[in-house]
Amino acid sequence: MRCEVVAIGSELLLGQIVDTNSSWIGEQLALVGIDSHFQTKVGDNLGRMVQALEIALGRSDAVIVCGGLGPTQDDITKEAIAKVMGVDLELDDEIAARIEHMFTSRGRRMPMNNLRQAEIPVGATAIRDPQPGTAPGIIAPVGDKVIYATPGVPSEMKEIMAGAVIPDLIKRAGISATIVSRTLRTWGESESGLAERLAGRVAVLDRVGNPTLAYLASGIEGIKVRLTAKGADEAEAHALLLAEEAEVRAILGDIVFGVDDETIEHSVLSLLRDRGLTLGLAESLTGGMMGSRICDVPGASDVFRGSIVSYAAEVKFSILGVPEGPVVTADAAAAMAAGARRVLGADVGVAVTGVAGPGPDEDGVEAGTVFVGLDLGPLGGEAGPEAFEVKLPGSRLQIRQFSVITALSALRTRLLLAH
Amino acid sequence: MRCEVVAIGSELLLGQIVDTNSSWIGEQLALVGIDSHFQTKVGDNLGRMVQALEIALGRSDAVIVCGGLGPTQDDITKEAIAKVMGVDLELDDEIAARIEHMFTSRGRRMPMNNLRQAEIPVGATAIRDPQPGTAPGIIAPVGDKVIYATPGVPSEMKEIMAGAVIPDLIKRAGISATIVSRTLRTWGESESGLAERLAGRVAVLDRVGNPTLAYLASGIEGIKVRLTAKGADEAEAHALLLAEEAEVRAILGDIVFGVDDETIEHSVLSLLRDRGLTLGLAESLTGGMMGSRICDVPGASDVFRGSIVSYAAEVKFSILGVPEGPVVTADAAAAMAAGARRVLGADVGVAVTGVAGPGPDEDGVEAGTVFVGLDLGPLGGEAGPEAFEVKLPGSRLQIRQFSVITALSALRTRLLLAH
Repeated sequence: MRCEVVAIGSELLLGQIVDTNSSWIGEQLALVGIDSHFQTKVGDNLGRMVQALEIALGRSDAVIVCGGLGPTQDDITKEAIAKVMGVDLELDDEIAARIEHMFTSRGRRMPMNNLRQAEIPVGATAIRDPQPGTAPGIIAPVGDKVIYATPGVPSEMKEIMAGAVIPDLIKRAGISATIVSRTLRTWGESESGLAERLAGRVAVLDRVGNPTLAYLASGIEGIKVRLTAKGADEAEAHALLLAEEAEVRAILGDIVFGVDDETIEHSVLSLLRDRGLTLGLAESLTGGMMGSRICDVPGASDVFRGSIVSYAAEVKFSILGVPEGPVVTADAAAAMAAGARRVLGADVGVAVTGVAGPGPDEDGVEAGTVFVGLDLGPLGGEAGPEAFEVKLPGSRLQIRQFSVITALSALRTRLLLAH
Repeated sequence: MRCEVVAIGSELLLGQIVDTNSSWIGEQLALVGIDSHFQTKVGDNLGRMVQALEIALGRSDAVIVCGGLGPTQDDITKEAIAKVMGVDLELDDEIAARIEHMFTSRGRRMPMNNLRQAEIPVGATAIRDPQPGTAPGIIAPVGDKVIYATPGVPSEMKEIMAGAVIPDLIKRAGISATIVSRTLRTWGESESGLAERLAGRVAVLDRVGNPTLAYLASGIEGIKVRLTAKGADEAEAHALLLAEEAEVRAILGDIVFGVDDETIEHSVLSLLRDRGLTLGLAESLTGGMMGSRICDVPGASDVFRGSIVSYAAEVKFSILGVPEGPVVTADAAAAMAAGARRVLGADVGVAVTGVAGPGPDEDGVEAGTVFVGLDLGPLGGEAGPEAFEVKLPGSRLQIRQFSVITALSALRTRLLLAH
């Protein structure tokens, strides 16, 4: 079973919008084991849309068209599909009634334009719009092949893909196997280091062919290890996946900080919440990025006290109580962590100081030199605040991003040890 | 003249990487007036790459292929181009010598694999790699049409596009006109508000057809107004562009904060630097994002002192000296700005406090309610710290992002007034 993606919209070709829909759909198809060999972008032009659809349908069994379903004159995806099918458009009464109801229930008259959203090619089936007022998707059979149409708005597209398109594709493909996947997020080991540790396990998996394992380096999101398992049914696939996850976790240990969408911030916040601890930060080269990432997580406020962004050295001395002297050192990082803990009234203090570049700082310290400080208070034992040095690669922005995940990952590991 | 883009890489189809190269290339083509009607993604498979190239070349005059030029076995773009041309690959001695020199000059032996980067199709021309060790681009004539190949690494692709591909395309297209473009970045007026203010001017431009004007809402980057002018030569095009920029600036006034890649952070930092002023921040809902954005700008350290991220109310009271009481108010924002200025030893203090959501806060204040505080010290006159309220739309992340640009934009306007 082969399925192509055709993304519609002149704004995609002009570079005004980056086409992230096709990428997302490609990933979903790969996950259920459907091959996708081509993806095409085409503008809002009927002739060229028909051409793109015909080429795609000529070499694949199914085509997913994304965008061009709205109520404006530009939106002609349904016309293009009807042309490929050799049929006309007709009004779907049920959808028309729903759209009309949406307007009248708000005391507004429906502009006639909006009825266009209720038209579908003769012989096609509308995918009922889960949210009233949004464009319905379409399943359009063409001989023994099929064209699916989804809206271009990512949230609507995803809903229709998950609820209707993927299940229909699986049915058509006669895929009896269920495929499930899980991503383990890691930090603390390079991609090649991970590969080395997992080499033996990968050799076993390669022999059996199921489950499979793949890596993906994702910057501030960590290095991801994706496990995919196939089974006769959901229960079998899940059992295989869980067993493989246990194998991989046994090899990787604590460097796995999260699963699927769980960021290091999520992970650290729940560890702290579980222990009833609050967090205070002191940031230098990251400039507030660590605090900002933590606040991305809704509900951070019961753990996160704040961050002292001490970009200037004097702010480190005056607010955080760092002893005067060089500020890109382990001692400065430890003192910053202790200062953050104290002035923010937090149970735990985390600090980063270093050189983001470009080029070395005025003291000649190389870009990428970063010190992380941790102060766990009484929980940390008698040794007091601690600090360590890392050398981080990349651009100014990457060094700052890697500093954030390195510091939060260190806190996570330290909290697990302290337990 | 029509030019298509073919992006190479199985990882693009699998959704592991989003194809931003094609978008960027599409924008560059539009800018010089070359039509691009289709963009295709295809995996690392010789047969399918050849098929994609032949389809593209069949309906367009030129094709830009992006990716697949590296030294590994997966990188077969040159093989595919040679096949379309009906020729073999041959070693380009000059490139081979350069690659070998790069290794020997570092005292390393060159792996034979790397010589593959020196092979090009017979009849094609190598675009000399501007950086040693990177893959050269290729110009491959096919009849009266042409295929260009660029590396997939964005920075290398952009260099080869700007230095060789676009100039060659312009020559082939016989484009005698020069097209130049400039983006004005604005904040302080909605997209529809901008459109209203510019309606008269746009009507004039629509009649003449040159220059042209377009809008693009870009979140934390502001709302962009793009001006594009066409002239018989560079001087004429630039003169038209400058004249139009003056017209538009006269209408929009101070809401234009920057040009092209200039962010609000850039703009605020240079205004402060010019006046010899330093900056201190106090952030609540933004969690450090404002400081982090400012540190994205290299050289921020001569202006930026730091930020007090006072996420917990008590931190606002204890460190910033905000009077105890509700903290999402104009008074609290003004007190935060004054506190930031004082404790960070800065000339100017900027503060944001508000509700990022989801949902209202515990006091029932709606998500999107944000107060900005400014303290310009003696520069601000006798009135002392000031504050204002805004209602911001969108998700938790958007509200935080809009808070950053709103606060920095307010500081910019205030500094211009104080001058």
